[in-house]
Amino acid sequence: MDVYEKSLQLHADLRGKFEVRSLVEVKDKESLSLAYTPGVAQPCREIAKDPEKAYTYTRKWNTVAVVSDGSAVLGLGNIGGLAGLPVMEGKAILFREFAGIDSIPIVLSGQDADDIVKAVEMIAPSFGGINLEDICAPKCFEVERRLKEKLDIPVFHDDQHGTAIVVAAALLNALKLAGKQLSAANIVICGAGSAGIAICRLLLECGAENIVMADRNGLVCEGEPWLTSAQADIAKLTNRKKLRGALADAVKGADVFIGVSAPKQLTKEMVQSMAEKSIVFAMANPEPEIYPQDALDAGAFVVGTGRSDFPNQINNVLAFPGVFRGALDVRAKDISEGMKVAAAKALAALVGEDLARDNIIPSAFDKRVAPAVAKAVAEQAEKEGLAR
Amino acid sequence: MDVYEKSLQLHADLRGKFEVRSLVEVKDKESLSLAYTPGVAQPCREIAKDPEKAYTYTRKWNTVAVVSDGSAVLGLGNIGGLAGLPVMEGKAILFREFAGIDSIPIVLSGQDADDIVKAVEMIAPSFGGINLEDICAPKCFEVERRLKEKLDIPVFHDDQHGTAIVVAAALLNALKLAGKQLSAANIVICGAGSAGIAICRLLLECGAENIVMADRNGLVCEGEPWLTSAQADIAKLTNRKKLRGALADAVKGADVFIGVSAPKQLTKEMVQSMAEKSIVFAMANPEPEIYPQDALDAGAFVVGTGRSDFPNQINNVLAFPGVFRGALDVRAKDISEGMKVAAAKALAALVGEDLARDNIIPSAFDKRVAPAVAKAVAEQAEKEGLAR
Repeated sequence: MDVYEKSLQLHADLRGKFEVRSLVEVKDKESLSLAYTPGVAQPCREIAKDPEKAYTYTRKWNTVAVVSDGSAVLGLGNIGGLAGLPVMEGKAILFREFAGIDSIPIVLSGQDADDIVKAVEMIAPSFGGINLEDICAPKCFEVERRLKEKLDIPVFHDDQHGTAIVVAAALLNALKLAGKQLSAANIVICGAGSAGIAICRLLLECGAENIVMADRNGLVCEGEPWLTSAQADIAKLTNRKKLRGALADAVKGADVFIGVSAPKQLTKEMVQSMAEKSIVFAMANPEPEIYPQDALDAGAFVVGTGRSDFPNQINNVLAFPGVFRGALDVRAKDISEGMKVAAAKALAALVGEDLARDNIIPSAFDKRVAPAVAKAVAEQAEKEGLAR
Repeated sequence: MDVYEKSLQLHADLRGKFEVRSLVEVKDKESLSLAYTPGVAQPCREIAKDPEKAYTYTRKWNTVAVVSDGSAVLGLGNIGGLAGLPVMEGKAILFREFAGIDSIPIVLSGQDADDIVKAVEMIAPSFGGINLEDICAPKCFEVERRLKEKLDIPVFHDDQHGTAIVVAAALLNALKLAGKQLSAANIVICGAGSAGIAICRLLLECGAENIVMADRNGLVCEGEPWLTSAQADIAKLTNRKKLRGALADAVKGADVFIGVSAPKQLTKEMVQSMAEKSIVFAMANPEPEIYPQDALDAGAFVVGTGRSDFPNQINNVLAFPGVFRGALDVRAKDISEGMKVAAAKALAALVGEDLARDNIIPSAFDKRVAPAVAKAVAEQAEKEGLAR
């Protein structure tokens, strides 16, 4: 059986990957009267007086909703909320397994941005945080922005920011090995959708100054008629030399290639045209923009992918559990750019003395990861006055 | 410490009464690739092809949302969704403890009927059933009706129908003891809100023919100017003799008094005025319409309350776990009147030979209850073509 057949069998055997357990044994009148009526009236009264007490008397402090409309699921595209439920259950159990978070999959019947915002706003009181997942661009930008404005709990679109944090961490370490500075590095990001734009923004926040983004239409440059509104915004902060043309033109002489696009976008010839000690992150899934051996053969110094069967797996499971753990631990009101930068730096620092061309990022199963990321995120939230 | 102080302490110790557990250990690349990417794509594809497969590959089959806007919580009134969360968590763990259901508390930030309907419709794909809770009348009628129309999963407002099922079961047994027929019994229901109206409808469905309802304004009678729209509907089916006046007028000669109203509504004198072998269910909480000893002293034959410290506790925990267990077991599309009647009859039948004036209804901790109710509900759903 291949991985797909095996996974289908596992899902059929389990009939769902999570369960909701009770922390109270309700075995007699006494326990019923404390966990439920009439005793339960008392924590209700306390929360009615002071809403912050919900963090003391309910599970809100540790509960994250994984919300999706299923409009951009993995490599499957727009399959709708219900068909995306196995992914959201998977995400929910990763929150539990990696960070001890009670996470609840919520898949939506509608895909309109207004409806999504309204529904999440309505159910938000139950939760300590909202993880948006697999929502297509450009809708994801609007939904996240509006929810961040409306809600006083963290809202985080993992496809954007989880990916960006792990890429930033990997890049910080790869540049260290190459003896280059982020601020001086010429960086090309191939794929100007939600993940590409989020990576770009976080790298700018980390100190990158020379980024060129590429889309299937060509290089993202101010004034190009095909730019989406999100691309037009990012064009103002990137491509300082106003390069136009094809991906190959931007890659020539570049220090870093970051691909979140499609298979076979990067050729060996293009890698050969890059600067000395070039860094290639080819993260298209399941087939990368270039296979690692091809990139190395063409002279790349460090290569990463999104896949677990090659070294340097850039996997957002390294980020989201710790980010939410840290945010929940200090009851953060928001997840700021500074908190994402802190997460990336903490993740990069964990590699320490083991840093090597085939080891720029910790393993997804390194138990130190989530606590280290959580600590950095929580401290940064405190520093920025975002903790309660 | 009293029950309120003890309960507050319990809630502070637990910081929430439920947790979400993973049913898969994600400990290495292999397990991650099956529970999450890339393997998880396969169950997604199967559900995209056939939505019913969500019941095979996800937890939908066993998951019930407990949804509330907190507009009518216990005896606390409109305290809002967040302050109602301890109650909804309590309800959720009762679903787990009594019927093995994965139940998720969802409290809402808004209280508008349109917003509630829209939010529940949006999140419904995650769930196998929706339990509405502590939503005030008359909004609860509209919200439930609209959701039942829109959704193809069971929607059940427990404050109405859970209570009604247990009252019907208790009444069937009490009438048996008294040697009276439901169809001939004169029944007074004091309290014409959501619970009272639901009790009335279910008793009519069971075969009752002579019911008079009373509200704080007087007896519910066609043409009274103060009737709400729900009361006007029920007036057409009740009070055949067009009685007007006070509660005492209706109680005189009645066989059955059912109170879901307020303390001290029923006096000893009023009980004395009832028919021979009268039945009194005084379910106002925490202080009943009349205390049991007073009712017995005044000549009542069978007395029940909502309290656990008196015999014959009419507690809706006897109904909702089994009702949803049965509905989920056959993937029922709805919970019909017939399914509620079946639940009431199954519950009544469980008492069997132990039937006595102080034992008309099983204990909440009788392990036979939920399975017996579930079986009856599932069979009735099959019979009515509501199972999938």
